[in-house]
Amino acid sequence: MIGWIVGFVDGEGCFSINFVKQPERKELLRIRKGYKTGYQIAHEFAVVQGEKSLPVLKNLQKFFKVGGIYINRRHDNHKENLYRFSVSKRDDLINVIIPFFQENKLKTSKKNDFNLFVRCLKLMMQNKHLTKEGAITIALICEKMNHQKSRSEIIRILRNQTSNSTRASG
Amino acid sequence: MIGWIVGFVDGEGCFSINFVKQPERKELLRIRKGYKTGYQIAHEFAVVQGEKSLPVLKNLQKFFKVGGIYINRRHDNHKENLYRFSVSKRDDLINVIIPFFQENKLKTSKKNDFNLFVRCLKLMMQNKHLTKEGAITIALICEKMNHQKSRSEIIRILRNQTSNSTRASG
Repeated sequence: MIGWIVGFVDGEGCFSINFVKQPERKELLRIRKGYKTGYQIAHEFAVVQGEKSLPVLKNLQKFFKVGGIYINRRHDNHKENLYRFSVSKRDDLINVIIPFFQENKLKTSKKNDFNLFVRCLKLMMQNKHLTKEGAITIALICEKMNHQKSRSEIIRILRNQTSNSTRASG
Repeated sequence: MIGWIVGFVDGEGCFSINFVKQPERKELLRIRKGYKTGYQIAHEFAVVQGEKSLPVLKNLQKFFKVGGIYINRRHDNHKENLYRFSVSKRDDLINVIIPFFQENKLKTSKKNDFNLFVRCLKLMMQNKHLTKEGAITIALICEKMNHQKSRSEIIRILRNQTSNSTRASG
């Protein structure tokens, strides 16, 4: 089972870090934690499959004993629904998913994504992502991940943040 | 290694049957074997990866001791070249690839594709694909495979073949 999981994740797994922009209304910002940089940084390990392979996702969830399975709404004309086994809680990633793939090494270039993902999570464990500098560091790490969209715009915004805040409050 | 291969192929492998239309010039047809139905039927087991994961494809080739690795030309704006580990010789599929996945079972819906692929190969071993009826049977099996393009046009052409031939030679 372990070998199969590693091979399957080498093919279909995804380790991703997402920058979620803060809400427009400044009042809301102060209420919600973690928005100190203007972005909340989300982390996810996910495997997506068509409905026919849903049992495989259920077995993954059973194996790891963390995460959930969610339907991925599709807006194209594919007949089959997609399902996503997703682990996004930081504790579950740190205590279960990361140790598993540190022990059972990926073989494709996804290993590089995984290593970058681990670097981001470690920074977040130290609450670095709540500072502008830490968030920029994480965005720069994400830029090295495969198939990730460019974070250059986010990095630019973060770098200009102090001047923007001054302008906004002035 | 075996578990990893099964998991990886569950994610990234492809078992496919392709109908290759005969050349237009009828003179050529008689020369080339296997065009008795107007189509040559090709079979392939393939795994495609980006250049960064080329070593993984080389390991697959080393493991199975059959097939080749080819560059997949890309016409979009992706930066990375794609490579394809491909086994298309019937003997290699029958003697190596099929027995491997019969012994080490796939877990996703790809197992269904594999089983349909095996059914097609068995028919081809009996030279059924050289007859109109056999080719139609294979095309109908292909219709049940995941993500395969519709073969309804090929089936229609094959079904009308006798009348067409009569017309052409009349």
